[in-house]
Amino acid sequence: MHSTEIILSPRVRTTPYEQRVYENGVKSFTVYNHMTLPVNFTNTEDEYHHLCEHVQLWDVAAERQVEIVGPDALKLVELITPREVAGCQIGQCLYAPLADEDGLVVNDPIILRVAEDRYWLSIADSDVKCWVKGIAWGRGLNVNVFEPDVSPLAVQGPRADDLMAELAGEEVRDIKFFRFIEKEIAGTPVLLARSGWSGQGGFEIYLQDSNYGLALWDAVWEVGKKYQIRAGAPNLIERLETGLKSYGSDITHADNVLECGFERYLNLDKPSEYMARGALEKIRRDGVQRKLCNVMVEGKPLPPLRLCWDLRHADTKVGRASSCAFSPKYGANLMFAMVAVDVATPGTELTVMVGGEPYRGIVKDECWK
Amino acid sequence: MHSTEIILSPRVRTTPYEQRVYENGVKSFTVYNHMTLPVNFTNTEDEYHHLCEHVQLWDVAAERQVEIVGPDALKLVELITPREVAGCQIGQCLYAPLADEDGLVVNDPIILRVAEDRYWLSIADSDVKCWVKGIAWGRGLNVNVFEPDVSPLAVQGPRADDLMAELAGEEVRDIKFFRFIEKEIAGTPVLLARSGWSGQGGFEIYLQDSNYGLALWDAVWEVGKKYQIRAGAPNLIERLETGLKSYGSDITHADNVLECGFERYLNLDKPSEYMARGALEKIRRDGVQRKLCNVMVEGKPLPPLRLCWDLRHADTKVGRASSCAFSPKYGANLMFAMVAVDVATPGTELTVMVGGEPYRGIVKDECWK
Repeated sequence: MHSTEIILSPRVRTTPYEQRVYENGVKSFTVYNHMTLPVNFTNTEDEYHHLCEHVQLWDVAAERQVEIVGPDALKLVELITPREVAGCQIGQCLYAPLADEDGLVVNDPIILRVAEDRYWLSIADSDVKCWVKGIAWGRGLNVNVFEPDVSPLAVQGPRADDLMAELAGEEVRDIKFFRFIEKEIAGTPVLLARSGWSGQGGFEIYLQDSNYGLALWDAVWEVGKKYQIRAGAPNLIERLETGLKSYGSDITHADNVLECGFERYLNLDKPSEYMARGALEKIRRDGVQRKLCNVMVEGKPLPPLRLCWDLRHADTKVGRASSCAFSPKYGANLMFAMVAVDVATPGTELTVMVGGEPYRGIVKDECWK
Repeated sequence: MHSTEIILSPRVRTTPYEQRVYENGVKSFTVYNHMTLPVNFTNTEDEYHHLCEHVQLWDVAAERQVEIVGPDALKLVELITPREVAGCQIGQCLYAPLADEDGLVVNDPIILRVAEDRYWLSIADSDVKCWVKGIAWGRGLNVNVFEPDVSPLAVQGPRADDLMAELAGEEVRDIKFFRFIEKEIAGTPVLLARSGWSGQGGFEIYLQDSNYGLALWDAVWEVGKKYQIRAGAPNLIERLETGLKSYGSDITHADNVLECGFERYLNLDKPSEYMARGALEKIRRDGVQRKLCNVMVEGKPLPPLRLCWDLRHADTKVGRASSCAFSPKYGANLMFAMVAVDVATPGTELTVMVGGEPYRGIVKDECWK
């Protein structure tokens, strides 16, 4: 496998920030929700160290929003997730897996309650809009479902609070985790949320008018200079260390929500109707067959994981590793892996097959212990 | 904009043919239905000439299938398209736009009737599976909707018939356009359809077991050597000349089916229920505001189109061009463009804005006349 170029056409949508991404020397992209998502500007390890020490600006416009608005909005949002949404207040974010009638994960968005009868699903990489529209039409619900012109820009890293306080006012320091406020930055109204796809702290700025993308980027950048701001992107090493799973890789539509470690967020007995209830009640009764867990391989860094690696236990295939990075913090390779439930206990030894070579892996808990 | 690398992880799925694609020196990919789709092996013009003279093998596994099977399969397929599906026979393909309750295009698949109560939608780049599953669940239909392990491999070009006749028997020459037969090739059962995303003739081989991907590729390749076979991909120049629109670029979920030139395929008065009926009846009554049409710009080749180019008429913006290639056959730049209906008549002059520079364009008919 050699290095290959990405070809972009209108089918792969641009972002409001893409010009600045190029100006900052982006080296690679992936495609996410039919839109460009930068991957590297220098290299993953260099960017990891910078992210953990300073502050970065991430074009994550590809985290598209699906807006659900109307009298039946809450009813519809409740239908598509086994998490209880009823208590969610305006200004609050909820991490909520979406599950179909088989209990399988369709996406794992953050739900933002934007107004009384208006929700945004800030989605991972699958066309949730179509699914939700289909359900709404099929059920005859009184809602409007569409993708608004909303493009998140993430400010991540330990200096994010100082930067954003200087840019948008000291009160942003008081925004609690997974809460958001309305603000005007660079002359345009945004939602400012304490959230983001790293464990280093920071914000996601929900731009609501693409025309202000470059102005918003520039406003953050200008203040960020003194904090050594750099253009960055969701970082493979950091997300492994922090435990952030990626939909499409670590979690897919072939996995049910109870296999993926979502239990802490869910209320399978919530009063509202939801599509996955029957399937999940049965799975809860029968027990799951597999579990998404953390696996560590000590020694030197493994090559990049393009396709899942097989995991074996006593010469039997017991699962697959779907993400891997060498962690400077732990001095070891960290992986997310879906494995048979009987070998998912921390401390269990597994064999990880990489390019035909066996490596000794150990199942770890969620804190890599 | 400089050349950027594509980063692949399990989230961007591999194809059963990808190893051969690399071995044949693929230079660039795009992402299509969360899967790799090769774009270039040498360059678009060189590949165009080869395609029009010889035969090429295309990894188009990214044309995923959505299988709809069960007692309500036909009812569901009828629901999602304004094309009449009832008359479709087993062994027949239908090109059919899918339209939502607003008459907007969700995708433009080829529908294959695979068995009495079993259809495949061979889709363009949007998650049709989720949409159809949502509708099926909402309506309580008795069907199963899923993505089967089916990966099309296209054999395209004027020598495709000779190649496939030698490989699979003389009777393949008798397969009519948009018909398919069952065959065994390379030890695995496939559907062999006379179809494909070029105007050069050829077949699409629907592999039904990923494990046989390399064997199938190799079987075609071996026979193809005497026909100067090369690895190729859907070709931008050829598709512009032939008039093949790309969903996501030329047609999007913001466009209704009557704006996109689908009328010839549709029966808005078909007896079966379909979601878009009310919306399309109204649009038919009121008339469309825009039309997808062909625009030609003579002179030297224009730069690659990354983002849509604005079209103007008498200093007013009247539309956007979404695809462009310089055609050796016509000695001019060919474009697909969605324009206001009053300037969509062949012969109308438009101004195409490319990087701030105006170019003189002329609306052409579908045969570039």
